Amino acid sequence: MSIKTIKWVENHARIIDQTKLPGRLEYIDCRDVETMWQAIKRLSVRGAPAIGVAAAFGVLLGIQKFKGQDKAKFLELFNKTCDYLSTSRPTAVNLFNMLNEMRAMVRSNPQADVANLKKLLYKQAMLIFKTDRDVCRRMGDHGAKLIKNGMRCLTVCNAGALATVDYGTALGVFYSAKKQGKKFSAYSCETRPLLQGARLTCWELLRQKIDTTLICDNMAASLMAKKHVDIIFTGADRIASNGDTANKIGTYMLAVLAKHHGVPFYIVAPRSTFDLKIKSGRQIPIEERKGEEVTHFAGVSIAPKGVKVYNPAFDVTPADLITGIVTEYGIIHPPYVKNISVILSAAKDLNEFIPTR
Amino acid sequence: MSIKTIKWVENHARIIDQTKLPGRLEYIDCRDVETMWQAIKRLSVRGAPAIGVAAAFGVLLGIQKFKGQDKAKFLELFNKTCDYLSTSRPTAVNLFNMLNEMRAMVRSNPQADVANLKKLLYKQAMLIFKTDRDVCRRMGDHGAKLIKNGMRCLTVCNAGALATVDYGTALGVFYSAKKQGKKFSAYSCETRPLLQGARLTCWELLRQKIDTTLICDNMAASLMAKKHVDIIFTGADRIASNGDTANKIGTYMLAVLAKHHGVPFYIVAPRSTFDLKIKSGRQIPIEERKGEEVTHFAGVSIAPKGVKVYNPAFDVTPADLITGIVTEYGIIHPPYVKNISVILSAAKDLNEFIPTR
Repeated sequence: MSIKTIKWVENHARIIDQTKLPGRLEYIDCRDVETMWQAIKRLSVRGAPAIGVAAAFGVLLGIQKFKGQDKAKFLELFNKTCDYLSTSRPTAVNLFNMLNEMRAMVRSNPQADVANLKKLLYKQAMLIFKTDRDVCRRMGDHGAKLIKNGMRCLTVCNAGALATVDYGTALGVFYSAKKQGKKFSAYSCETRPLLQGARLTCWELLRQKIDTTLICDNMAASLMAKKHVDIIFTGADRIASNGDTANKIGTYMLAVLAKHHGVPFYIVAPRSTFDLKIKSGRQIPIEERKGEEVTHFAGVSIAPKGVKVYNPAFDVTPADLITGIVTEYGIIHPPYVKNISVILSAAKDLNEFIPTR
Repeated sequence: MSIKTIKWVENHARIIDQTKLPGRLEYIDCRDVETMWQAIKRLSVRGAPAIGVAAAFGVLLGIQKFKGQDKAKFLELFNKTCDYLSTSRPTAVNLFNMLNEMRAMVRSNPQADVANLKKLLYKQAMLIFKTDRDVCRRMGDHGAKLIKNGMRCLTVCNAGALATVDYGTALGVFYSAKKQGKKFSAYSCETRPLLQGARLTCWELLRQKIDTTLICDNMAASLMAKKHVDIIFTGADRIASNGDTANKIGTYMLAVLAKHHGVPFYIVAPRSTFDLKIKSGRQIPIEERKGEEVTHFAGVSIAPKGVKVYNPAFDVTPADLITGIVTEYGIIHPPYVKNISVILSAAKDLNEFIPTR
């Protein structure tokens, strides 16, 4: 039942086409960087960590057809490829962070020739891929400590295997808790407009035999008022150095409701989702997507022609509404301004996470 | 551009089939009580005040084919018809209140024969119809005082002409403000699962040339955080004597968010929506509807087969989150336990509201 959201197969990337789920489990073989760019843009592959891996694989696709030994030309193509991939989506910082990891590999090997650089970049992309697998399992194990028997856990959007290589951030916590034999149930907010909760999270959780109930986003408040929600876990697209967190639209709503009802609210995200260059959530660019995502479903119009639409894909949850941030190093608690830098600076290098298995 | 949600045409009721909007403006001619029951059940006619009128017209449909002079048999049919209509939907109290008005007409005329009772019930139903038209305009005028130039007003579900005979409760406030020449704009929450906000409210507001922006329900919090919402108006399905208010699912969410962001939150509802027999919102029965409303759209499945669904049609907003309740008598403010009874007892009889025009 394992889910392979993205992997490298011989000389190309294979991704699950998430726009087809839950109806059909189909794959897209990305053999050039343009196909990968489109796949990211139209959300065939989505979820901050998965986008990071997709970007690294996109770089491999962009450079692998380069012939010859002209290093200047190679570097020109490499940089153009990175710049191009960075235009696919604006909010999830994993995209930029992983492109930076690829750039750093080139920068730190100034003597390498073209053939060598290709090998080094391949190695780096595979490290990024393997790191995601390892890091998600570590986060899951840390987060699972928060789940007690009988708990009802709420989540939004999809922060699962489909948002990462194969395990998940918020849903990784569920999977680890399940492995540990804990009994709990899940509420999945459907997550309008693109219904990643209904389509993807419910699909994943049912495959893993987790007791799951689907709700519309506007029902979460009512559930909390009835004390049917014990804890909330969500993923993240970008976390500022003060702990402010951008995630799927509706996350901030849940955080405010959680505060009002006294429900613990946790973010689950790896180091690659932190953007320590920015001080607060105000500096996070929020992607606005086209109105048709809201006004149409499966080609059918659900709103009168000509109505204006506001369709931000993300919102920002201020740090003071976040109970804790589950990372691969453990759970970071407030004060975030101090604790994020203390914990993340303890491990500066991706190489620390090479999976040993 | 006027909207005739429900009216009596010769010897039957004609309603707009709201399940077809905004795509098509179609009418259903209800010539028997079963057709009206179905129309209420499947939301062809919906909105608490409109359901109240529909129930009164349903009674007329149920009794009009009665032949003969046997009063006992007539009363049996009348009572059976009222009981039947009261099973159509459980939450909106207007349904029960208007059936009670019809019953009261019979009770207060013990000497009347069958022909007379038929006439009296017709007169009562027409009074209920006309009262709705008048009362909505009065509420609109009271509520419009709250709207200042430049305000951005948020609403949920449809509390408009389509929820009443032809004017609306919350949207009646917008229409009165517009008539008064005020400049303002509206945000309409789409209102999952059945999208009454996207389908009905946007359709109405665009027809009335009100500047309208559609959002998904989970975007309201983000709008409020950006200070893009100045005031919230919603309708109601039942208001307890302490001010606790049942309304479309998602209303309670908005009320909590409004409190967090300091946004005034108003309910707009006529006397017929109050249930003074109950002390608090805990006594309001909340309709749960079938999961397919959430898992399917236009016949297309948007969730994996077999997932559990929680689909309450309403939630209850505690009185302490409500800034004021706009009624036909003016705006009721806290303390509600006292002020609701003071204001409503000042006018005990529907007849006080016979429109004079």
